[in-house]
Amino acid sequence: MTTADRRERLVAALGDRGLDGLFVTTLVNVRYLTGFTGSNGALLVPREGAPVFFTDGRYRDQAAKELPDVEHVIDRDLAGAASPRMGSGTWGVETHTLSVDGHANLTSLAPGATLAPAGRVVEELRLVKDEEEIDRLRAACRISTEALDGLLAGPLVGRTEREIARDLENRMLDLGAEAIAFETILATGENSAIPHHSPTDRVLGSGEFMKADFGARVAGYHADCTRTVVIGKADDWQREIYGAVQASQAAGLDHFREGAKVSDSDDAARASLDAAGWLHAFTTGLGHGVGLEIHEDPFIAARNTGKLVSRTVLTMEPGIYVPGRGGVRIEDTVLVTTGAPEVLTTMTKDLMEIG
Amino acid sequence: MTTADRRERLVAALGDRGLDGLFVTTLVNVRYLTGFTGSNGALLVPREGAPVFFTDGRYRDQAAKELPDVEHVIDRDLAGAASPRMGSGTWGVETHTLSVDGHANLTSLAPGATLAPAGRVVEELRLVKDEEEIDRLRAACRISTEALDGLLAGPLVGRTEREIARDLENRMLDLGAEAIAFETILATGENSAIPHHSPTDRVLGSGEFMKADFGARVAGYHADCTRTVVIGKADDWQREIYGAVQASQAAGLDHFREGAKVSDSDDAARASLDAAGWLHAFTTGLGHGVGLEIHEDPFIAARNTGKLVSRTVLTMEPGIYVPGRGGVRIEDTVLVTTGAPEVLTTMTKDLMEIG
Repeated sequence: MTTADRRERLVAALGDRGLDGLFVTTLVNVRYLTGFTGSNGALLVPREGAPVFFTDGRYRDQAAKELPDVEHVIDRDLAGAASPRMGSGTWGVETHTLSVDGHANLTSLAPGATLAPAGRVVEELRLVKDEEEIDRLRAACRISTEALDGLLAGPLVGRTEREIARDLENRMLDLGAEAIAFETILATGENSAIPHHSPTDRVLGSGEFMKADFGARVAGYHADCTRTVVIGKADDWQREIYGAVQASQAAGLDHFREGAKVSDSDDAARASLDAAGWLHAFTTGLGHGVGLEIHEDPFIAARNTGKLVSRTVLTMEPGIYVPGRGGVRIEDTVLVTTGAPEVLTTMTKDLMEIG
Repeated sequence: MTTADRRERLVAALGDRGLDGLFVTTLVNVRYLTGFTGSNGALLVPREGAPVFFTDGRYRDQAAKELPDVEHVIDRDLAGAASPRMGSGTWGVETHTLSVDGHANLTSLAPGATLAPAGRVVEELRLVKDEEEIDRLRAACRISTEALDGLLAGPLVGRTEREIARDLENRMLDLGAEAIAFETILATGENSAIPHHSPTDRVLGSGEFMKADFGARVAGYHADCTRTVVIGKADDWQREIYGAVQASQAAGLDHFREGAKVSDSDDAARASLDAAGWLHAFTTGLGHGVGLEIHEDPFIAARNTGKLVSRTVLTMEPGIYVPGRGGVRIEDTVLVTTGAPEVLTTMTKDLMEIG
């Protein structure tokens, strides 16, 4: 699907909502609709007529290269440049990200126009990935798991969390990642009990958990993967909580298919942890969409009664965190299909005892 | 200055504005006021009484460690948890970052409270850096320039932009950066004419410009530095535009001192480029504050009539960009004092001919 196709789908969605157009100010949505990869830009998409892109002087050449098919205007004041083109129509704005001050500014700049909350109309389009997006997500996930495979083959004991995290990141870059998808969580020993731990100078020892939550970025698309391994031989307690998390993750994944309620996977993963007696030690969310953002729609939660649709990509990531002792998380990035879900982060989830 | 001292200064500022408190939802402002380094949090600072911090379950342990002196509440719904504590007072909110939907949600959650735009009250406090902040900025800048020094000593010709950028980033991490401050701009040959260029597989050749815009991050604080060198011997045209940028940068820096209008440095740097006949080829902004954010107040512009105050840290970064041919930018991160400005990115700005 080209970006022009995406804009066409957006225009159809605007018609359904009675809007004369959308002023897109959420940068990642601008990228989705145009291919623009810079750090500042906005897009005016009228229901009738051609779209116009706005950015500042830093991106003059880049805009010409990345958006050959869209008129672009160079101006430091994006809203100031866009507002004269809004006329007297009813324009949707992205009130979930547009600031109160930004909205007031736009209202005064375009006094003839009516601004209407457009909801997450572009995010809804982004839910269902096209072939190119899935290829990029697949590549990012493959690079991620290959990098972890390589890391686990090398020596680990005696190295610091920081060293191990950098090693993993360098492996992803060597394998072709354009960047890391987010700051790597590399937690050893008792630090593995901290769900979002920043790597420290703690030295990895034998008999400990090592948890890595990490991912590669490829052409703007993110991978998100967590594996927890034991260095040396696992003891009974480690086996117990690992097994409980593994079962919970499988239970959640079972509900990643077209037509299932998003909350079903939440229910199933929690019920599994509860049956094992460990639900009290799970303190985070169970998953989220992945794409141009590392965290995007849909967010898995009991209150999310929406239904999953085919070609949505999201994570399933239960965990058990025992403060002061250690923890386990297992996370995959997964493609929803009409049949069984396709795990993109293909790597064993059985307990690995390393070294 | 401790984070408690910062909160005390904030409370005084709230009094000046007739507010009963501030609901801080801008993450970087939350960090400034509490030391919290996670990715999700909010802070309620009442004018009378103790502040309360809100975050989700991922950060339970981290919050306990990083905010031992502040009550914290664990809840996925930060506004939902904070609103019952807002009572019937007049609460400032950060309308420059709070979304329209977030504001509406808070209004309905706290019907007894009056929400008032608080302006950039925390950003104003952040303008003037304390000793600890300056130490961190100094360290980040030292790491950055040392890394570039090392890079320039090694072989460069024949390597790709991507390889050179990674080498530079690895050097910063080896020297103790916790992360890179932003995605490195490494542009060679005609790509140096693109102000914000992402590294490609273009191979660096002799006689070309190489422009590096990069920085290290240390304990949350960013460095921002640009140097442009010539590989081999510079020709006349390269010398001409380099000299014009160097003179412009010096002219701008001259006005970085307590009491000067921010726009004075903008005027001076532009006048210098204009006198050299190159103002038409300068298409970006001249500088910005640097601290917990890579781009923060104050932003240098002709319309910024505010005055510089001592202990503000900002950049000066004029450039000349000639599409299809090449470009030069020189940028320092600089500490404003009552006397001459202190350049933190200490490294020569004379034309370097490398190799």
